Amino acid sequence: MPKKVDHNQRKKKIAVATYEVIRKKGIEGATVRNISEEAGISLGSLRHYFQSQDELYQYAMDFVVEKVGNRMLTIMKEEKPLIDKVVAVLIELIPTNEQSLTEMEVWFAFTNYARHHSNFDPQSDHIYDIIFKLLILLEEENLLKDKIEKDNEVETLYALTDGLALHALLDPKRLNSVKVRKVIENYILSICELPEK
Amino acid sequence: MPKKVDHNQRKKKIAVATYEVIRKKGIEGATVRNISEEAGISLGSLRHYFQSQDELYQYAMDFVVEKVGNRMLTIMKEEKPLIDKVVAVLIELIPTNEQSLTEMEVWFAFTNYARHHSNFDPQSDHIYDIIFKLLILLEEENLLKDKIEKDNEVETLYALTDGLALHALLDPKRLNSVKVRKVIENYILSICELPEK
Repeated sequence: MPKKVDHNQRKKKIAVATYEVIRKKGIEGATVRNISEEAGISLGSLRHYFQSQDELYQYAMDFVVEKVGNRMLTIMKEEKPLIDKVVAVLIELIPTNEQSLTEMEVWFAFTNYARHHSNFDPQSDHIYDIIFKLLILLEEENLLKDKIEKDNEVETLYALTDGLALHALLDPKRLNSVKVRKVIENYILSICELPEK
Repeated sequence: MPKKVDHNQRKKKIAVATYEVIRKKGIEGATVRNISEEAGISLGSLRHYFQSQDELYQYAMDFVVEKVGNRMLTIMKEEKPLIDKVVAVLIELIPTNEQSLTEMEVWFAFTNYARHHSNFDPQSDHIYDIIFKLLILLEEENLLKDKIEKDNEVETLYALTDGLALHALLDPKRLNSVKVRKVIENYILSICELPEK
């Protein structure tokens, strides 16, 4: 009896190999040939799962987004004050360890690649919507300062988060995880009104 | 008598051609061959000015930084309240018109390229230092709120600015120049204490 192949597992393995290649050689080096080599499968087998490089890239990007999204959902289900959850979710978007550094590197490479490859959509990360939802949750719990306009605030917080993510990727020595946490905490406190104890 | 060639002019022309090629084809398309074609000069002539692709890229990147820096200096010399100058300088870093969009595109492409080409230093943009200096100026004029810690604030404002720049590049329809201005103005007002009139 032939060995059963778990196709989803196989596709994820190829996605992970794609991240490895991008981390080591940049997107220029992320050819299907290099990726199949990294994954330890034949080029033919890779082509069985992904007909084109763009299809593979899209899958690999979506898989990163899914992983980050799942981590955020886990945080939101934890038993702790909403403000602490909001801070934790935002920090999840910023590379502060090996895993999130790789994810950000992949996001950065794919986003740049997508500028000149219109088949590919890096905007599917929904971070804007997530941040908007966090602001609504804060408002519903009467934690958001009255003067905060959500339409303006979502752009501010989204830009702050992605800017920190970019800087933590480009200059991790300067912007380490301690500093990232402090910036996010200070900022969230500045837009929130804490209930009197 | 042979025609005198202004070498600096020639190099700048090559840099501008580099931006055009990057804007149209991405960094993958920015080969010395394509750049010499865009500039309307021979490959040999280009090689006379730049021995390697990295040397050309570094020059092109430095020239963008110089142009942006000069526009900032001009703003700082204007006769208007410091807060207005600070807002204007920060907006100068965010792509809100054709010219600054090209500059940001070039920065984004080069920065990504540099991740895997160690000869190339995109960190020479000094934006961190400029933003720190803006905070010191605000403090010297007693405009900065007492509770603002400059070391934390510089990271916040730098991340906010670069995040806005990134989003204005990636999604200019959502984050247009009116919104960019509002985010920056609101944020600067939130860290400043305006003198009583």
